[in-house]
Amino acid sequence: MNTNAANDAPSIATVSETNRSRIMKHLYHEGVSSRAQIAKALHLTPAAITKITARLIEAGVIEETGDMEGSKNRRSIGLRLDNARFHIVGVKFARSLVQIGVFTLAGTELSLETLPTVWEHTIDGTVALIHERIEDLIARDDAIVAVGMAVPGPYLRDSGRTAVVSTMQGWRRVNFIDEFSEAFGVPVFIEQDARAGAMAHFLFDERTHLEDVLGYYLIGEGVGLGLIDHGTVINGALGAATEIGHISIDVNGRPCDCGNVGCLERYCSTSAIHAMLIEDGTLVPDADRMTHTESCRRLFALAKGGDERAATMVREIARYVAYGCVTIFNAFNPSRIIIGDIVSEAGEAFLAQVRATVAERAIPEIYETTEIELSTMPTDAAVAGAAAVAITQFLDHPSMFFDVA
Amino acid sequence: MNTNAANDAPSIATVSETNRSRIMKHLYHEGVSSRAQIAKALHLTPAAITKITARLIEAGVIEETGDMEGSKNRRSIGLRLDNARFHIVGVKFARSLVQIGVFTLAGTELSLETLPTVWEHTIDGTVALIHERIEDLIARDDAIVAVGMAVPGPYLRDSGRTAVVSTMQGWRRVNFIDEFSEAFGVPVFIEQDARAGAMAHFLFDERTHLEDVLGYYLIGEGVGLGLIDHGTVINGALGAATEIGHISIDVNGRPCDCGNVGCLERYCSTSAIHAMLIEDGTLVPDADRMTHTESCRRLFALAKGGDERAATMVREIARYVAYGCVTIFNAFNPSRIIIGDIVSEAGEAFLAQVRATVAERAIPEIYETTEIELSTMPTDAAVAGAAAVAITQFLDHPSMFFDVA
Repeated sequence: MNTNAANDAPSIATVSETNRSRIMKHLYHEGVSSRAQIAKALHLTPAAITKITARLIEAGVIEETGDMEGSKNRRSIGLRLDNARFHIVGVKFARSLVQIGVFTLAGTELSLETLPTVWEHTIDGTVALIHERIEDLIARDDAIVAVGMAVPGPYLRDSGRTAVVSTMQGWRRVNFIDEFSEAFGVPVFIEQDARAGAMAHFLFDERTHLEDVLGYYLIGEGVGLGLIDHGTVINGALGAATEIGHISIDVNGRPCDCGNVGCLERYCSTSAIHAMLIEDGTLVPDADRMTHTESCRRLFALAKGGDERAATMVREIARYVAYGCVTIFNAFNPSRIIIGDIVSEAGEAFLAQVRATVAERAIPEIYETTEIELSTMPTDAAVAGAAAVAITQFLDHPSMFFDVA
Repeated sequence: MNTNAANDAPSIATVSETNRSRIMKHLYHEGVSSRAQIAKALHLTPAAITKITARLIEAGVIEETGDMEGSKNRRSIGLRLDNARFHIVGVKFARSLVQIGVFTLAGTELSLETLPTVWEHTIDGTVALIHERIEDLIARDDAIVAVGMAVPGPYLRDSGRTAVVSTMQGWRRVNFIDEFSEAFGVPVFIEQDARAGAMAHFLFDERTHLEDVLGYYLIGEGVGLGLIDHGTVINGALGAATEIGHISIDVNGRPCDCGNVGCLERYCSTSAIHAMLIEDGTLVPDADRMTHTESCRRLFALAKGGDERAATMVREIARYVAYGCVTIFNAFNPSRIIIGDIVSEAGEAFLAQVRATVAERAIPEIYETTEIELSTMPTDAAVAGAAAVAITQFLDHPSMFFDVA
């Protein structure tokens, strides 16, 4: 053990910031609580609670709600964090799709704009347009306290770049930190897209428990995974962990832009499905004039409409998605996998095939205790997730946003 | 979010136990420190340090060392945790190999015994012998405060069973918790073997930093991985995460006892190598009369001695080990992978081939920032690791061992 290790570690927050954050998270997740309830739940002394909540009230982060019913019919004053009072901008970067939304702390969508489809030669123009739109949103809404961004992984958080963007390498030229981090007068946070989706489900999905090991399995233009283990996101050394899309499922298989062979992404992303449809030629005859997403939606509609060849292709895709689930089981042993993004639109028959293939290949004790489901978030989890990235920081590091120390 | 989530969470330690543990870890890793140094490093108040250390001294866990040189030439009293004062029994269960060692808190081996080779029909006798030996060790050594055990993964920590033990299913009948947890009058802790090896490197290897994302990649009778991310072990929901040996590298490949197809373990474990040697028939002509370990050691000796066919087979094994490394990169983005157990004995030529294959297939930014090395622990990392499992608990939960509250 290096003798300077403890001093070098920048990740150990001060005790007071940690307790401040714990109180804000308690109020965020549990709703109105009295000081006594918070003290009991968090094992903090009443004196510490009184001091910290006084500063949070003074800074306008939380507020008193007047009398609430106490546990023994005694009345006490409630505290709450008003989830609607603070607004967050979320920006989702997919390969060809950029969306900008405004959300409350609770994940309620207040507005959503989809920018024009992005092509290799329009990336610079898209970046300029994003600046313009976000500046405009912040100018018109004082409640906006942060911007969150979800970008395709693997995202190298220290250098601010995505390491691989299959099918649209131009995004690799954009340094997201240089481009956006100081641009707007409010803090900006950037995260890999699937991780953002996992944060959205962790914060906004009422069925999520703090002790879950929750995986958000994004299957869209890319394939990714975000994993939250008892409230902690698995990042790895450079922020490039949980890149399920680039884990090989066949070391003798299809080559990938990332340098690896047989990457999962090469078998079930929308671009892989699109290529299958173009090669097929007859199932979706005009596939070569569609976007990846359009061609996939056409395939899924055909399958749901009873076309047997389309249904067979969807089952084949589901088997590859299931191989990814089995890898996720053995790598991360989650309690719950939520499948999201475009390919989840294939629906219940698709999900049934995923589960059937997982049942064949997974260790039975793990299969029996792991839920696999489709995302039911009202909007795309990654754009709400972009907001969730910033909300997570807001709850983890309140002193970055307010003078509460 | 479930409204009872925070109350349900048993994993949130009390603040005082957390601070007690942080002080013990500081003294364990940093050596002799003054109260002022501890307060500064851990962001704790001098009053809290005084109170907690007084109780730890009273309970005999830590001690004062007399004067030490202060930072401004002022003299102050040092505190230390005497790493040699407490002894830990470590038990490694491999499929056919059981070893029992006694270690200090610093990982120094005081004794090591290898039990007779285990066969399917001798498992019950082996279990009885383990009871006898540990009881005897504890009777003769008052300093023993805990027993740690390392068992083949996937180990389901709540039910106390290993879910799969390729090539020796009899171990699945043993419920490790029922069999050992209350047997010895000192606390017993059980962990998956590769995770135990990771803990050994985390605690005992001077080159390990707290902020490392450290993977111990065990390649022996089974193939496993233990992953420590900034000091936290990745366990998953049931303790079955990081099971690299059962991640498929070829979804159309060799079937495995676990139900999956193309598991990494089927290509580079000692049992897989042994099967290759028996099939080959000429390279190690008497392979069919050897144990897995013996046949592998013979192969490695031939390769090192210049036998070109043996060297080719070792390079082929190294390529599979490398595919596992690339999967570990994309799943966990570690800063360091330490390859251990029998197959690491293949040596430097083997390691060079692993690195060369990883360089071909990994994302360059990740390859450049990840060290891959062979374990240099003096004894098998898993038996020292079994002790490390208990030492980790000793440092994390001092109140389980001493009356310090």
